[in-house]
Formats: sequence, C-alpha cells, structure tokens
Amino acid sequence: MATPRKKTTAQVIAAYKRQGARIETKARAPLAQKSDFSLWYTPGVGAAAAHLARKPKDARRMSVKKNSIAVVSDGSAVLGLGNIGPYGALPVMEGKALIFKERAGIDAWPIVLDTQDSEEIVRIVKAIAPAFGGVNLEDIAAPKCFEVEHALIEALDIPVMHDDQHGTAIVVLAGLMNAAKVVKKDLKKLRIVISGAGAAGMAIAKLLFAYGVRDLIVLDRAGALYAGRGNLTPAKEALAACTNPHKIAGGLGEILEGADAFVGVSGKGVMSAAHVRLMGKNAIVFALANPDPEILPADAKKAGAAVVATGRSDFPNQINNALVYPGIFRGALDKGVRKITEETKLRAAVALAALVAHPNAEKIVPDLLDRRLVKVVAGAVRGAS
Amino acid sequence: MATPRKKTTAQVIAAYKRQGARIETKARAPLAQKSDFSLWYTPGVGAAAAHLARKPKDARRMSVKKNSIAVVSDGSAVLGLGNIGPYGALPVMEGKALIFKERAGIDAWPIVLDTQDSEEIVRIVKAIAPAFGGVNLEDIAAPKCFEVEHALIEALDIPVMHDDQHGTAIVVLAGLMNAAKVVKKDLKKLRIVISGAGAAGMAIAKLLFAYGVRDLIVLDRAGALYAGRGNLTPAKEALAACTNPHKIAGGLGEILEGADAFVGVSGKGVMSAAHVRLMGKNAIVFALANPDPEILPADAKKAGAAVVATGRSDFPNQINNALVYPGIFRGALDKGVRKITEETKLRAAVALAALVAHPNAEKIVPDLLDRRLVKVVAGAVRGAS
Repeated sequence: MATPRKKTTAQVIAAYKRQGARIETKARAPLAQKSDFSLWYTPGVGAAAAHLARKPKDARRMSVKKNSIAVVSDGSAVLGLGNIGPYGALPVMEGKALIFKERAGIDAWPIVLDTQDSEEIVRIVKAIAPAFGGVNLEDIAAPKCFEVEHALIEALDIPVMHDDQHGTAIVVLAGLMNAAKVVKKDLKKLRIVISGAGAAGMAIAKLLFAYGVRDLIVLDRAGALYAGRGNLTPAKEALAACTNPHKIAGGLGEILEGADAFVGVSGKGVMSAAHVRLMGKNAIVFALANPDPEILPADAKKAGAAVVATGRSDFPNQINNALVYPGIFRGALDKGVRKITEETKLRAAVALAALVAHPNAEKIVPDLLDRRLVKVVAGAVRGAS
Repeated sequence: MATPRKKTTAQVIAAYKRQGARIETKARAPLAQKSDFSLWYTPGVGAAAAHLARKPKDARRMSVKKNSIAVVSDGSAVLGLGNIGPYGALPVMEGKALIFKERAGIDAWPIVLDTQDSEEIVRIVKAIAPAFGGVNLEDIAAPKCFEVEHALIEALDIPVMHDDQHGTAIVVLAGLMNAAKVVKKDLKKLRIVISGAGAAGMAIAKLLFAYGVRDLIVLDRAGALYAGRGNLTPAKEALAACTNPHKIAGGLGEILEGADAFVGVSGKGVMSAAHVRLMGKNAIVFALANPDPEILPADAKKAGAAVVATGRSDFPNQINNALVYPGIFRGALDKGVRKITEETKLRAAVALAALVAHPNAEKIVPDLLDRRLVKVVAGAVRGAS
C-alpha cells in the first residue's frame, strides 16, 4: 500500500466540498411498477402500519429498526476540538456512519443536536428511538455523558453506548493485554496510571477494574484521585472509592514512580522523558491524546519505555475505537441485545487482543483494515450472556 | 403492465417480514485503504469539523445536509388508521423515504416520535435539524399539525412541509384545474364544497383561495363553517372568515345545492347519490377518503357526475400526494429554498396539471409512475421566487 502524501487542511476541506455527503440512502425494495407501489406504499403499507401498532416488537423484523443505529452527538466535546456544536460534530458522526456501513453493514444515520442540555438530550433520544435498533452516543462532554448514557440505558430497550467511553476502554484493555504479554508481566498485577478523568479515562479505569486490575490511579487536572480528596463530582467520587488503594496524592511526578503502565487520555506534552524514567522497568506507555500525544513515541522509547501506543495512524500500535464499535453494534443488532454489559466489553477486548497472534512491541492491536475485526468482535458480543 | 392479484393482509405482512428494511444506507466515499481512512475519518474529519464549526452554512456543501430530509411523524393520524403511535407510523415514513430515493434521489430518513406533545415535537425537530436539508412532516393530527408546522417554519432555515396538508392541496388543485377544463368551466368561478376540515381540508381550502376561488364552503362534522358560527378553533375561525361568503349553514344536503365541485377528505360513505343530484350540471366529485371513498365512482357517475377522482390506484384519477412531494423537496434542496410559499405551491400545481396534455374525464392527473413528475415539479419550485 502506497503511503499517501499528507494533505493540507485546505486540501482536505476542498475534498469534502467536492465529495458532498459521504453516505446516502439506497432503496432495498423495488418501485418499478404499480404492484410495487401497492405493496410497499399504498395501500400495502397500511396493513404493515396497523400490524406494528398492535405488535411494536415486530418493528425489528419489518422496518429499518432491524439494522439501524442513530449516531448522536451534541457537539460538546468533538475530537480534540472541544465544544464546537452540532455543525462541527456533523462530519465526525457522518464519518462514523460511513464506517458502520462499510465495515459492519449497519445502516447508521448522523443525528447532531442543537441543544447541550442533558435532560433535553435524553428526552430527544428517547423520543426518536422507535425507528432505531441502537444508539451510538459520541463526542458528548464529561460528566454530562455519564448521566445521559445512564438515563438512556435505563429508559430504552435498545443498546445505547457512548463510544468515547467504552469503545476506547475496550481497545485500551486489549492493547494492555498484549503489551503485558510483550513485557512478560501479569496485567492484573500491574500498577497502572491513567492521566485524564474525562469520558475515556473514567471508562478505561472502570473496565480495567472489572478485568481485575487493582493497583490503579487516575489523575485529573488537580492530580491523583483518592477517596476523600474533596470537591469531586459524583462520578469521580465513585471512581476514587475503588482506585488508588494507598491514597497517594500528587501529580505525575509523584504518582508515576515505579508504575508499570501509563495511559494518557489527557493532552499534548503532559508526559516528559523524566516522567517515563520514573516508571518501572519495561514500562508500557499509551499516549493517546489526539492529534498530539502526551509524549512522542521516539521520546518515550529513548527514555526506556518498552511498548508505546498512540491514537495516530502514522505510528505503530494505533489505539482507535473504530477497531471495536462496528463489531459491538453488529453483534448487538444480530442478537437483539438490549444492553452492552461489562461482561460484553471484557469479551470484546479478549477477542480483539486475540487477533494479534504474536504480539510484539510494534504490534499489540490489529490493523484498522483487518477484515476479521467485525466478525470476531460481533461474535464476542453475541456470545455474551 | 400486468395487473397483480390483490394480496391479503396476511400476505402483505409476510412480505414485509421477509423484506425487513425497505431502505438502507450506502457509502459514497471509499474506505479501502489507509489514505481513505485518513481523509474521510481520522485525522481528515477533524479539519472538516473545525471548518463547519466556523462556517455552519457549508454543511450544505460538505455533509449529508446537502441532500437529506427527515420524514417526521408522531403517529397521531396515520393514513385512515388514526392515532396508532410511532411504531404504527414507521412503515409509512419508511415507505416515503423509499419513494424520496427512488423518485427524486433524496436521502430521506424516517424519524418517528415517541411523544405527541406539540411543543415537544417542535423542540425535537428543531434540535435534530442541523443534519437535515429539509423536514417532511407527516400523519400528525389536526389542529396540532398547524401549530407544529407554523412554529418549525418560523424557527428553521430549511424547508418544512406537512405533506398531508400541502402535498394533498397541490394535487387537488391540479386535478380541479384539469377537471374544470374537461367540463369547460372557469375554475375561479366555481362553487366548491369541501367536506372535512382536518389537515387536508384546511390546506385545500387555503390553496384554492390563494388560486382565486372565492365561492368556497368547508364543512366539518357539525356542518358548514361560516364566520361567527361559534365554538371554532383558531384555524377554523380564520378559514371561516375567508370562505362561505353567503354564510350558508347546514350539512351537505343544504350546501351542495348547485355546487360545481365536491372535494371529500372526510370519510367513507359521507356522500350519497342524492347529494350528487343536488349539484349543478357536469358536477366534479373528488371522493378522496382512503381506502373507502365518500362515494364510489360508479355511483357518483350514475347520479350525474361528469368527472370523478379518488385516492385509490384501482380507479381512474388517483389523487395521491406522492405525485408532488418528491419534486417539491428535490427543487427545494437543489435551490436551497428556505420556505415552501403559496406561490411555490401554485406553480407546482400548474406544472403538475400541465403534464396531462389532453385532460378528459378519465385522466385529469398524471400517473404515479410518470417519470417526468419530479423534474417538472422540481423545476416549478426552483423557478418560484
């Protein structure tokens, strides 16, 4: 595969203008003759309408609900760009819809909301849910994303997943599984430091805990979370209660000493070479801030890191939630799964990690173009109880 | 074209179950190699997102907004089935999305709402509007549909049209233009009686008035509307003020005497042969209740009607809004029209009527399968100022 020349911002925008939409609709039923109209439009549609009014559950068999996902954002935390609103979010949601179709055959439609009030978002998504088989929440700021996701999971009978949280967490767990193999350590016994207590950081911590990791410290901008630090949001309070068992306070300089793994979901340049040198032998460094990682891979390696991952496609070990979300929803739609449980996420991570037959420092996660991804992840979701 | 055997309800439902969804999504941009991912997903999508955050208007050029319509219903007045809710409405909205694609190349997505509160509907549609280039409201009960449509037209910068009102009104006006030709009368001078003051009846009356018809009487279940009748909704009050110039009270038996045309958007069997005989010579009868018209065509003709139309495909002269809505939105999207004005609707009706070169009693509107429909109606919309 030829390496493309990197495009300038102006070239990218010009390409999007030439392209117009990246997804469209397509007819699955014919409308060529009068009998087609009679069956698929009037009067036939009346019989289908009367039937679904009586048996709404059959919408999963007789309508777009069978295979469709709403990709929903309020634009409050778009990529690394921050709160740029619904129009800023639109290209990202449309890109996800494109990937859903191309990778997993899922009919996803972008829904970007001209409101950022969490109760309003919940009301809207509940109201539009009947025509969709699932909801992918995306680029919604923390801590709002936690309330919104929780309320929708409780209210709806279709799977709802905030991908920035759980997609990321699943890929990070899979990556750490293989990184631990590479350095010949037991992942459950590692001391892991997570920099960033936003949507991704919180979900990564929770999933690592569910996996069995116990020596886990999460830092926000004010330093390490620990039980009783004070001034914590309810979500951070809950996380502090089950992490940082020795209640260590301080910033990375204090916390990283002797750590086995660092997971950065914070910002550019947060980690220095000196920080890496504080860590234990054969350190694992995931510098996932995008597009500019917490530390560049070359610098981390020079400072002694054994395995380095980033969110970028131009370095080895790209941690990208596109590795899992198409398969998660494919499996959920296939099996009519109502909730994406912790067990489902753990199974997906195990399945994802297993796709790399012989992990090494330059290869701990599968390639985004790996055609086995969706099948294997969807299989893990279908297999979860 | 062979006439198909009519399917039973059970056969139709079985066909819908075999079919599953009638529309799906389709990728318009490739995702075959890494450079595709870089451009259409990450990191390229970040440049598009940042651009649209600064210049939201460019969403019409760089996203699904360019060519997409939300087909929105709360399921409160679905076909002749009444208030059957969002799941009942879903097959109808999906059928419209199928027609939008097949006839007009428009990417329409069904949105059925699990709420019937008009303020909530307005809030939701406003909130989801950024990703859509237009909104087709459908099967929302009167008088709620008037408030909802009015509020959305005021609030949004994309075209919003309640098709049950205006699609129907445009086709009725086109049909009456050609029917008047057939009976060699001047449409503007006809005495026209409209039975039914719901969404369709109100819109038909308004559009006929805008066209220049002055001797117009609308009946609701309590009889003819006239200024000062009392107990009228604001919408009916407004209509009463500009119709029924002689303030005639009573039911069809009183009102139809000497009328030139009857337009029924009410219910099965509302009109009798005796009613038709009350009308003037060469009477025009549009019995549009679906699936059972106000009077059967054979009965109306036997009683002296010169031209008869229904909403059904198994009789001549099918008045169906599918004749116009694909072209209305095609034209609006092509030209970036913000409002569907009365002038636009009048032009569309004229264009539609002109497609029938030589109107006769059995042919006053084009066939639903006529491939010229969208082009001609869209052209009329683009040409409106």
